[in-house]
Amino acid sequence: MRIHNFSAGPSQLPLEVLKQAQDELLSYQNNGFSIMEISHRSKYFEDLLNEAKEDVKQLYKLDDNYDVIFIQGGASMQFSLIAMNYSLDNLSCAYVDTDVWTQKALNEAKLAKINAQFVASSKDSGYKFIPKIPEDINASYLYICSNNTVQGTQYKQLPKSKSPLVVDASSDFFSKELDFSNIAVLFGGVQKNAGIAGIACMIVRKDFYERSKQKELPLMFKYSTYVDNNSLYNTPSSFAIYIFALQMKWLKKQGGLNKINELNTQKAKIIYDILDNSNFYTCKAAKEDRSLMNVCFKTPNEELDLKFHTQAAKEGLIGLKGHKIVGGLRASLYNSCDFDKINALANYLIKFEKENR
Amino acid sequence: MRIHNFSAGPSQLPLEVLKQAQDELLSYQNNGFSIMEISHRSKYFEDLLNEAKEDVKQLYKLDDNYDVIFIQGGASMQFSLIAMNYSLDNLSCAYVDTDVWTQKALNEAKLAKINAQFVASSKDSGYKFIPKIPEDINASYLYICSNNTVQGTQYKQLPKSKSPLVVDASSDFFSKELDFSNIAVLFGGVQKNAGIAGIACMIVRKDFYERSKQKELPLMFKYSTYVDNNSLYNTPSSFAIYIFALQMKWLKKQGGLNKINELNTQKAKIIYDILDNSNFYTCKAAKEDRSLMNVCFKTPNEELDLKFHTQAAKEGLIGLKGHKIVGGLRASLYNSCDFDKINALANYLIKFEKENR
Repeated sequence: MRIHNFSAGPSQLPLEVLKQAQDELLSYQNNGFSIMEISHRSKYFEDLLNEAKEDVKQLYKLDDNYDVIFIQGGASMQFSLIAMNYSLDNLSCAYVDTDVWTQKALNEAKLAKINAQFVASSKDSGYKFIPKIPEDINASYLYICSNNTVQGTQYKQLPKSKSPLVVDASSDFFSKELDFSNIAVLFGGVQKNAGIAGIACMIVRKDFYERSKQKELPLMFKYSTYVDNNSLYNTPSSFAIYIFALQMKWLKKQGGLNKINELNTQKAKIIYDILDNSNFYTCKAAKEDRSLMNVCFKTPNEELDLKFHTQAAKEGLIGLKGHKIVGGLRASLYNSCDFDKINALANYLIKFEKENR
Repeated sequence: MRIHNFSAGPSQLPLEVLKQAQDELLSYQNNGFSIMEISHRSKYFEDLLNEAKEDVKQLYKLDDNYDVIFIQGGASMQFSLIAMNYSLDNLSCAYVDTDVWTQKALNEAKLAKINAQFVASSKDSGYKFIPKIPEDINASYLYICSNNTVQGTQYKQLPKSKSPLVVDASSDFFSKELDFSNIAVLFGGVQKNAGIAGIACMIVRKDFYERSKQKELPLMFKYSTYVDNNSLYNTPSSFAIYIFALQMKWLKKQGGLNKINELNTQKAKIIYDILDNSNFYTCKAAKEDRSLMNVCFKTPNEELDLKFHTQAAKEGLIGLKGHKIVGGLRASLYNSCDFDKINALANYLIKFEKENR
């Protein structure tokens, strides 16, 4: 029996992706070697990587003004590198505070000695909502985290801004189409919505490539090195790129990002409806900014929260404990969370309330 | 049929490691989820990681003066980070030039604005041998690359030095026991001798941990962050750690590093003996410094070199082309290269000479 995993990441993979990986683990496309064993400079691997990049561009409907790179270190490693690569000498970098992930990003930028600060925050409300952001900020870039796993908030629209947007999309990557008209950089770890841990994917606009190109940094810190070498300057995390490539094919087979967003909206609605129609569960995030990816909620008390997720685990629903910062409960409903899983969670929510209210 | 892969890396894995990974790809230890899908903060994953660390310490016979971390970006990302973490303010960093990998390491250190230079080189000989290194160098550290994939040279003994050693062991990691009495840092990508691409493993001595701890750097650049958080400060490359863990068990099952070294010595001898007893093949590296890992050789001319590796590929022996810097041919005989593969290569070498001399 496969268990239902609702953890915030790494997350469950589509079963057909896992099965394909298993089928060809000893012999990639019947070539007599595993994809893990083959040179990253071989035609086999480069073809795979190029196709994955093409699929990214198709899914997000990108033109040649954007390039796609794969890099190691997760999103967290990019926090300092983004500031080091993309800051301009004469303009500070503007960040929007939506809790822990944006705080870490700003902190790493500052430790890299880059001039950067928050220009908006919803801290005073306990991060219940996405803050209003002044449109006329003139910064090297405006940095946001498009979905916030800890608080369960998400930007429904990207902010309008005079400054180019840098978006950490780690937790809603490839979950919906985006308006790229002001996006200079979209990046994230892929282990939640689009694969496994071990790579970050970065979509970067040409003018930001140029910024990177002009910096004097170690070559492995410079994003232009990755663009210039098709992400093969050194050995990449090849198996993670392979799983990512399979997941891109799977996303296309589902009907693309608009269709995926439709499904994600339906899935989240089933769970939020139960929470909203209950006097037992509460959900802190403001309705208009609620995340389709991470549903954060609580029972009437901590004791019941504990009972909720420990009992759930015994029934095959794992990963429902909330982040330690906020406590409570959290169900992460990423792209590969299917309706079987949603229904199992819905039934459990209803049953648990009946038994414990 | 499984083909024989002699490429310099990523390299072939032991078949039993691959098969175990395949068997439990959908259900890790019969738990109903893949190791790729599970939270890195779960007990399942932490147990696996802790056991891998313990196995590293057992294999190298390390005491508690050393810690083991896993980090992303391959060895190349460590080139600048090592200099940034381990340089001392008042002492420059000393590097030994054994060609491309040490040049890249030094270059990245310099780009990170660290005071560093070569203190020995075998450049004048065309990198035929490992240079003599003055023992009395007083530097932040003495940096060497213990095995050189491009030129096919290897340190048979680690150099004696007044300065603590930092060793890039990417291409002979876990291939033999080492005298740790002067090793402060042993690190490398693991995709050649001990797993797949996507992680570097670093063994670090306590005093170097302290150096790192005192630096003001982005947290993701600081090795002390990885030590302090058991390599789980952010999501690690979990599947690569899993394969590494399986490979550690496999190494122990083979009898440990002394036994592995014995086998590696026998394997390389079979190939070198054929080359040495031939007037057809030549081998540039000085006999006393020849690599057990990468056998670099040539036929009488470039045309025959090309014929050698293209014909070999058709017969199921791939990855025999030399590095573009030096041309010629190269057979990489890492830990998981077994005697079947060695014999296949030996037979091919003999046959090719007969047909083409």
